[in-house]
Amino acid sequence: MMLRFLLVVVMLISCTDTYKMVKGDEYTLESVRASLIRQEDTIVFNVIERARFPLNSPTYDQHYASIPNFSGSLFDFILNQTEDIQAKMGRYINPEENSYEENLPVSLVPHYNFSQFLHPTAASVNINKSIRKVYFHEMLPLFVTSKDDGNYAQTATSDLSLLQAISRRIHYGKFVAEAKFKESPHDYEPLIRAKDKKSLMKLLTVKSVEDIVVKRVEKKAMVFGQKVSLDHDVKGKYKVDPAIVSRLYLDWIIPLTKDVEVEYLLRRLD
Amino acid sequence: MMLRFLLVVVMLISCTDTYKMVKGDEYTLESVRASLIRQEDTIVFNVIERARFPLNSPTYDQHYASIPNFSGSLFDFILNQTEDIQAKMGRYINPEENSYEENLPVSLVPHYNFSQFLHPTAASVNINKSIRKVYFHEMLPLFVTSKDDGNYAQTATSDLSLLQAISRRIHYGKFVAEAKFKESPHDYEPLIRAKDKKSLMKLLTVKSVEDIVVKRVEKKAMVFGQKVSLDHDVKGKYKVDPAIVSRLYLDWIIPLTKDVEVEYLLRRLD
Repeated sequence: MMLRFLLVVVMLISCTDTYKMVKGDEYTLESVRASLIRQEDTIVFNVIERARFPLNSPTYDQHYASIPNFSGSLFDFILNQTEDIQAKMGRYINPEENSYEENLPVSLVPHYNFSQFLHPTAASVNINKSIRKVYFHEMLPLFVTSKDDGNYAQTATSDLSLLQAISRRIHYGKFVAEAKFKESPHDYEPLIRAKDKKSLMKLLTVKSVEDIVVKRVEKKAMVFGQKVSLDHDVKGKYKVDPAIVSRLYLDWIIPLTKDVEVEYLLRRLD
Repeated sequence: MMLRFLLVVVMLISCTDTYKMVKGDEYTLESVRASLIRQEDTIVFNVIERARFPLNSPTYDQHYASIPNFSGSLFDFILNQTEDIQAKMGRYINPEENSYEENLPVSLVPHYNFSQFLHPTAASVNINKSIRKVYFHEMLPLFVTSKDDGNYAQTATSDLSLLQAISRRIHYGKFVAEAKFKESPHDYEPLIRAKDKKSLMKLLTVKSVEDIVVKRVEKKAMVFGQKVSLDHDVKGKYKVDPAIVSRLYLDWIIPLTKDVEVEYLLRRLD
């Protein structure tokens, strides 16, 4: 009798856990938007921090660092090895995180029960290859000088930190898409079934919200990038040109987030 | 004749290089102070970023993560492995950088000729053990909540980034001390010879400058930690309490920097 009672209690507890896990009740369209706004601060901080260093081109030169048993640049090595360590410590167990490297080692630490808000196919949406390309070819040259100060390891670490922040923001598109889908599944389902990318993109685009994001990010670059002094704030001189930071959002971060949203939705009914 | 001329040219060039290397003409008391001010921004950004996460105590629990072939916590693993990678990529060749771990691997990349401004004994001044202790026991609990969100790898990475920024600032005391020494060697030399720590501390302390630093850091925490919105800035609500950030400087960062200055000066005439 006692044993049976205990068994029921245990089952009830595990049901509640499963329910909580499946429901993912931390995520709402409102909470997702709040997280995106907070992530802007992280991205702006990281852009400002990367701009402490010049380009430091040897960091990316395959021929500069000939690392034993490794083919790639100093940056490649830092990226590969750092993601490796963080994977072992469970970073990518959180569905909000997406790695740049493939074939990372499994986590060596107990798995934390992260809320499972997304459809299981979410894990297969990863556009970090595109993000990496765009970052080095388009974004980075806009906000660093072309000089060389020898701090290559610090530069690569700073790049990685910014790349992780940008990747997290862009792949947060999965959470945005899921929240939007949950709010009006009947609008999305026919377009998903028809694989109509163009109409999906139209349906999830709110131009007025995007305009606000771009303007707010520019303001954040002004506020966080100013020279703070006790006598007077030095206005009009910023660590990174605020127009460039807003351009990062307008030209790449927002469009790539929407690409993730569409990619996610296309697999939402699988 | 031609060969002899070339030889002289080569010798002249290498002399100039050596001179530049030895002189370390990038560093002046003014440039050192400017760097310290810029480093405040980095520290404030990193405090704000660490505060995104709660304490996440399993990160520091030796018993939580039982990592094969490694004795220590999840944080210890991230610290040890990340410094290992960065050492291989040459981070600690720069005299401005000081590692937390001992016995790190040698750099695998070509050595950049960093300006050698400091006395050669500088490398033996490293108080990171004290910084680490003070960070986890005194500083960190002041600005994080006691909760747990499962992001242990991210938390450890964030701690490391902040610890590196704090260590860099505190060990910059070597550059401060060298600049001050160069300005008035006759004031310092007798005290160094007498190993008179107390008088050295008194000589290098400028209370009015310290007061300004503490106030400016508080203002930076207000500016960088505010919630930036397009309509209105939310005044009086900060991501991290500015009074706590200034306390980090007043109680630990400034005193530890001065400890480094004294330690450095004591070895300055070796």
